[in-house]
Amino acid sequence: MDAALAGAVQTGWEGLLQQQRAFLDTFWTDADIEIDGDAELQQAVRFALFHTVQAGARGEQRLIPAKGLTGPGYDGHTFWDTEAFVLPLLLLTYSRRQAVADALRWRHSTLELARKRARSLGLRGAAFPWRTIHGEECSGYWPAGGAAFHINAAIADAVERYLLLTEDETFARETGVELLVETARLWRSLGNHDAAGRFRIDGVTGPDEYSAVADNNVYTNLMATRNLRAAADAIERYPELARPLGVDDEEAASWRIAAEAIFIPYDASLGVHPQAEGFTEHQEWDFDSTPPENYPLLRHYPYFDLYRKQVVKQADLVMALFYAGEYFTPEEKARNFAFYERLTVRDSSLSAPIQAAVAAEVGHIELTYDYFAEAALLDLDDLSHNTRDGVHIASLAAACTAAITGFGGLRDLRGKLSFVPRLPQALTRLALNLRARETIRLRIEVEQTQATYTLLMGEQLEIHHHGKPITVTAGQPVQRPIPPAPALEPPAQPRGRAPERRRAHETTRHQRERA
Amino acid sequence: MDAALAGAVQTGWEGLLQQQRAFLDTFWTDADIEIDGDAELQQAVRFALFHTVQAGARGEQRLIPAKGLTGPGYDGHTFWDTEAFVLPLLLLTYSRRQAVADALRWRHSTLELARKRARSLGLRGAAFPWRTIHGEECSGYWPAGGAAFHINAAIADAVERYLLLTEDETFARETGVELLVETARLWRSLGNHDAAGRFRIDGVTGPDEYSAVADNNVYTNLMATRNLRAAADAIERYPELARPLGVDDEEAASWRIAAEAIFIPYDASLGVHPQAEGFTEHQEWDFDSTPPENYPLLRHYPYFDLYRKQVVKQADLVMALFYAGEYFTPEEKARNFAFYERLTVRDSSLSAPIQAAVAAEVGHIELTYDYFAEAALLDLDDLSHNTRDGVHIASLAAACTAAITGFGGLRDLRGKLSFVPRLPQALTRLALNLRARETIRLRIEVEQTQATYTLLMGEQLEIHHHGKPITVTAGQPVQRPIPPAPALEPPAQPRGRAPERRRAHETTRHQRERA
Repeated sequence: MDAALAGAVQTGWEGLLQQQRAFLDTFWTDADIEIDGDAELQQAVRFALFHTVQAGARGEQRLIPAKGLTGPGYDGHTFWDTEAFVLPLLLLTYSRRQAVADALRWRHSTLELARKRARSLGLRGAAFPWRTIHGEECSGYWPAGGAAFHINAAIADAVERYLLLTEDETFARETGVELLVETARLWRSLGNHDAAGRFRIDGVTGPDEYSAVADNNVYTNLMATRNLRAAADAIERYPELARPLGVDDEEAASWRIAAEAIFIPYDASLGVHPQAEGFTEHQEWDFDSTPPENYPLLRHYPYFDLYRKQVVKQADLVMALFYAGEYFTPEEKARNFAFYERLTVRDSSLSAPIQAAVAAEVGHIELTYDYFAEAALLDLDDLSHNTRDGVHIASLAAACTAAITGFGGLRDLRGKLSFVPRLPQALTRLALNLRARETIRLRIEVEQTQATYTLLMGEQLEIHHHGKPITVTAGQPVQRPIPPAPALEPPAQPRGRAPERRRAHETTRHQRERA
Repeated sequence: MDAALAGAVQTGWEGLLQQQRAFLDTFWTDADIEIDGDAELQQAVRFALFHTVQAGARGEQRLIPAKGLTGPGYDGHTFWDTEAFVLPLLLLTYSRRQAVADALRWRHSTLELARKRARSLGLRGAAFPWRTIHGEECSGYWPAGGAAFHINAAIADAVERYLLLTEDETFARETGVELLVETARLWRSLGNHDAAGRFRIDGVTGPDEYSAVADNNVYTNLMATRNLRAAADAIERYPELARPLGVDDEEAASWRIAAEAIFIPYDASLGVHPQAEGFTEHQEWDFDSTPPENYPLLRHYPYFDLYRKQVVKQADLVMALFYAGEYFTPEEKARNFAFYERLTVRDSSLSAPIQAAVAAEVGHIELTYDYFAEAALLDLDDLSHNTRDGVHIASLAAACTAAITGFGGLRDLRGKLSFVPRLPQALTRLALNLRARETIRLRIEVEQTQATYTLLMGEQLEIHHHGKPITVTAGQPVQRPIPPAPALEPPAQPRGRAPERRRAHETTRHQRERA
């Protein structure tokens, strides 16, 4: 700190200004998302990008709090959404790998406390806290806090994404593999093989905070599976770390076996996946008798009532569709999405951006536009009436991801990049740059009827466009037509909870208010 | 209060002493349980009877607290166990009907608060509190408190038993029917018919406090069924109360339909009933790695861990076998009992007496003896190390009931009295008196190879003895042989949690210590 101050004094005002300008120039060159056809959303997405980088780019040895440094909301605590939403966006776009590595190194610095917590719960490995500043579990109500073990999978997932992209060997050896191994150990001890051999994870809480302590939450189980496999892969790739981390062949095999045998409940009569075992058998929330002023529901109904009924605060099974999309067929995605749309009230700001992304994937691009607008304008328009407590860093980051995955049509980054780009009627152009590898950058420019792929860095890249393979080489942009959108019945939301139908604005709100 | 004091002063010391002696003489004539062959247990069961009557006989307009007036434990609160354990014993034995009517009138006096609580939970009817002094819900942790709705069925059950026995029309009109109706309304709104038409009760907590907030707890669902039917029956019997209580034909029919359609989960692969949906699929608690000093488990393991595994604090499905025995076949009872013996750690003092009763029913009379001894000696031997906080009124009452139903072999009182008496090897005789109706009293005397039934009051009574009908008439005791006990493999308990094998004592501990 003293060193930083002394350095700043020496650099002087003009020097600092230049450094800051260079820093932000790099960021905007890397990460800008250009939107034509809706000036308000262009402003909003840049606002969101700016706040993401401001909160996330210089975490260094400290946590990235839910509100960044913009306000006192959540008492400065960090949650799972830093790893689940903020870091993936930075990885996708921003060239300064240090930003993400720092955030994960901070998590790693709390490993001893996470190990201690796992032991206190009778578990192995590390159980990272649901909310914390220094690494201690600070949530006061365990069914909605400590039981939400999926934070551990989000941490492992961020590690895995970082390593895939950067191939940062130093980070892997010092930080990454240990995080993967310790979280895999947690899952292996938290779950168990049942009489049928299935690997179950009972009595935990998934992302949806209107359910708690349920068996076999699909998102949790799928993310745990990825975590278990990533740890086994990492030990295979870095066999010299096995001994220092105490991993033997039996243990690594047990992770793969558990992942292979994971139990994912399915409701065959409805043709959908329950977000956790038994969920689809519960009574449906009486949305028709719930007046608008009773939202958010948690302020007006006891958890007792919410937990036992089909009502979803925020994407949960739909999170699984987004983060573990490879598990589901396109038909399952469409049916699941429609089913959960009917039940999801978006009382959490983390919901709309995920719904935006999955809506696009299943063909509802206008709905993506609506949800994206809600997510991007969350703090600019103070939609949750609490921006005074600070901006919602993770929601804003997720809004940017929704633009990339929704309109840009980017599918899961693991393996090859694949795009299914498509714009809603109101937008005329979306352009963004992505990191495909540490040294490969791709620009995608989407218009109503065509998309253009340009390699900004690197020699050659194999990608997919609307299901067809294409090769992009340096200096030779590739243009491809966008097939017309399928005509689909738009899904229904709970009464009164449909997103506002987005109407494009040629000017920003600020410009309109000035005029 | 002033009047009572003035009356006492006028009566004087000798008068009060005489009144008290007469009061207790009546009680002992009514309720004494004679045990030959184990002087210590003879003393213990009388200690238990005395404390039950002391706590329960003069509740009048006040609650019967969990500790009676013997100590500060549970802060003077009353729980479900007053209605579930104390009142049934008084009804079975004690001739002063006012004692039970008073206790239920006290509950009724809190009805308005229970209605208010039901409304605050979005439910209809009345939701009586899990723990209370004045009628407000005073539990601080809702998954183990407020979600334990089965207290409402226990209240209704006590009302139903009282009305069956006494045919007290005044009580029915002023108090009983309204309690039945308001609790039935609670169940009808708490549960719901699912797509298959089944009536489900999701997200509630059963008697076992090592599980919480589960779907379709079997004990709860069966007791709710009884509650719903009792309310419909009561309205049929007292049609003139329908209008003042706002019950129309549709509503009463909906109670019967729900009761008829109740969903009782069954695990076909194990051939047992899960205590709640999904219970038998959970991992079994690792009893072999649990050291003796870690009991009671709740002091050493987080609820998170207990809730998600197969470990039972106290009889729950076995409570269903006891209170709703008519639902199960004898084979189901035997299999269920053995299954839950393996999982039940008896960290609650309410468990042993119920296990004692059901053990006898499924043929393990020596185990009944062990559990009965544990229950009866609970406070005399300070087995839970907390008798300084007051005696366990409900557990003591249940111990007496265990003698009546275990050794006396009394089966469910509804309809005809039925007996399957049998003594453990150590006991030579058990004798007790029971109320069959308001004006019919039956004495049963059990020896090793025969039982004798004598009508103490009334002209004639039809009963069953070991499955065969007999008629007992005034002045003509009936003696019947007791068939030899079946030779059965005794069930296993969790490691280190088998009850102490009872060794009969010819003298009481007090006598031995003096000698």
